[in-house]
Amino acid sequence: MTSANKLSPGDTIGILGGGQLGRMLAQSAASLGLKTHIFCPDPSSPAFDVSATFTVAPYEDVDALNLFANAVSVVTYEFENVPGNTAAHLNARVPVRPGVRALEVSQDRLFEKQFLSGAGVAIAGYADINSQEDLENALATFGGEGVLKTRRFGYDGKGQLMIRGAADIPGAFDKIGAVPAVLEALIPFDCEVSVIVARDLNGSCKSYDIARNHHENHILKTSTVPAGVSEDTLEAARKMAEQIVNGLDYVGVMGVEMFLVRDGSTEKLLVNEVAPRVHNSGHWTQDACLTSQFDQHIRAVAGWPLGAADRHSDVVMENLIGFEADAWDEVLTEPNARLHLYGKAETREGRKMGHVNRISAKTV
Amino acid sequence: MTSANKLSPGDTIGILGGGQLGRMLAQSAASLGLKTHIFCPDPSSPAFDVSATFTVAPYEDVDALNLFANAVSVVTYEFENVPGNTAAHLNARVPVRPGVRALEVSQDRLFEKQFLSGAGVAIAGYADINSQEDLENALATFGGEGVLKTRRFGYDGKGQLMIRGAADIPGAFDKIGAVPAVLEALIPFDCEVSVIVARDLNGSCKSYDIARNHHENHILKTSTVPAGVSEDTLEAARKMAEQIVNGLDYVGVMGVEMFLVRDGSTEKLLVNEVAPRVHNSGHWTQDACLTSQFDQHIRAVAGWPLGAADRHSDVVMENLIGFEADAWDEVLTEPNARLHLYGKAETREGRKMGHVNRISAKTV
Repeated sequence: MTSANKLSPGDTIGILGGGQLGRMLAQSAASLGLKTHIFCPDPSSPAFDVSATFTVAPYEDVDALNLFANAVSVVTYEFENVPGNTAAHLNARVPVRPGVRALEVSQDRLFEKQFLSGAGVAIAGYADINSQEDLENALATFGGEGVLKTRRFGYDGKGQLMIRGAADIPGAFDKIGAVPAVLEALIPFDCEVSVIVARDLNGSCKSYDIARNHHENHILKTSTVPAGVSEDTLEAARKMAEQIVNGLDYVGVMGVEMFLVRDGSTEKLLVNEVAPRVHNSGHWTQDACLTSQFDQHIRAVAGWPLGAADRHSDVVMENLIGFEADAWDEVLTEPNARLHLYGKAETREGRKMGHVNRISAKTV
Repeated sequence: MTSANKLSPGDTIGILGGGQLGRMLAQSAASLGLKTHIFCPDPSSPAFDVSATFTVAPYEDVDALNLFANAVSVVTYEFENVPGNTAAHLNARVPVRPGVRALEVSQDRLFEKQFLSGAGVAIAGYADINSQEDLENALATFGGEGVLKTRRFGYDGKGQLMIRGAADIPGAFDKIGAVPAVLEALIPFDCEVSVIVARDLNGSCKSYDIARNHHENHILKTSTVPAGVSEDTLEAARKMAEQIVNGLDYVGVMGVEMFLVRDGSTEKLLVNEVAPRVHNSGHWTQDACLTSQFDQHIRAVAGWPLGAADRHSDVVMENLIGFEADAWDEVLTEPNARLHLYGKAETREGRKMGHVNRISAKTV
């Protein structure tokens, strides 16, 4: 290893989490001549098949964490719910990138909103909710509607309750578990878009083109690039994404989800949430860019310069969810499609099993 | 496994050889949801880091081969010098693809030339050489010059002797080891080109665009696509490549090297040699095509349909040989370059350590 900050080929990157994101990170690391060591409690983690080394242990196992820290040059993670103590314990021994602060902010919707506001980024109105009374007071100022979300551990629509009228209000705080929450104003948005942004150790940033995202059952179904937004909106999205990663002194790739609100011919963006990791809405970069989001994240956490985020093709990414992946052999007959499967041992309803990138000649 | 011929995601492909080609095949297999099991005598094989399972044993270890055959659904190989007995032993237990016949032909320059002639493909003149006397007789009909090559185990210029005049003749047969050889007529060629062709289990073929190859010290240095040849020559190259794989009832990717001979404005192609595997001159497909040669080979040997061989970008592939790979960090600063490193433990003079693909917008 060249220095504590910059890795050399042959060095090892530790990855917390052995799902598909860890797997694709490990594949990119290998292409760049780096080894990976996956740390994951699940003995059937799909990332193990493509990494040089792995550890099966709970995230709270201090002995296992110490061995892991000694065996790697830097640690990164594939998911934002890394326990705070785990991240702090490792960070005292080896650099953890994107960083402990990014985890703290993204694990808690209230902290996230406070940080985003402070970073000067436009977001939807919100209120801090710790009781049914807080909720009712906030709804009174929000026109009686909003989305109630637990502050922690929400994903793919879990831990959320939509409130559209008086009938939805009684008992709402209990329904989400009577845990600390936020109420978000309902935004009449045109679509959800996302920006995949990367920042290196020197503070240089690169953003990919915006993707337009379509969800089904609260799970991302497709990401389309180009997104069909104006050049000004593209530029505004990039600027906001870069304000966010700069504000966190972030190192690595981040997914920034935004609502696009149209008012006549004007387009306005409100940041919805951030994911301090490679992101499902960035999988299109694997086949439409020379540098994929996975390569980019590995380069950043290795202390290397970022690659170009240019796009050479138009693309639609489609997730294969649950038994949709059984159609893998039909995808193989499509001339402009590339199939990606995650090697998961068991197909389950709602489980992300793979994705397809369909490319075409670049238009804009 | 769906049938003896067609694999399903989760099945395992056995790969003989654990070098960079085996490694990149294993990476493609993983992206397609297949597992790999590498068989290689070298305990520090770079492919081990990216495969689910590996066996370290000599290719002659029958017990190890039996265990390997039982553990995989199909066997492929990354190099043409797989011992004939090894291939035959495995083939009696599990399908070996591209196939035993392809190995026999490509392991012996005489058999290769006889096969190519029989397949109706244009090649340079040659003679069967088993003694110094054979050599002198043949040279008399070849205008006193030619390239003397051992029939077996030649690569990267090894086992070859250039004969340009009378001074080179005495003792020439001894110099190459007094082993069975061929004399090839010297061709005043304009450049070497190659075609990467693939054939699936049903006999469908797809060929990538021709690459123009430049060698240094008998080792491939760059492959450039487009190659700057006429549309007719492209078509002729594809046709020859497909005649070859059809003639071998081949399944998988093959590299076909050809000499391009220019006579005024006419272009003529002579096949030089074939490699029954993914080929260094096809590495450009990783970043200029949706389906790389590695994906394509895996699809074919899995009994799956081929992907499109279309190219979305222009590209120059450059090999990083020996200590050239120390410049990895300079490559990382180039905006249109993608670095590939093979994870080899030791850098050695003449050793292929990695490559770079530099892409640009597609011109033709």
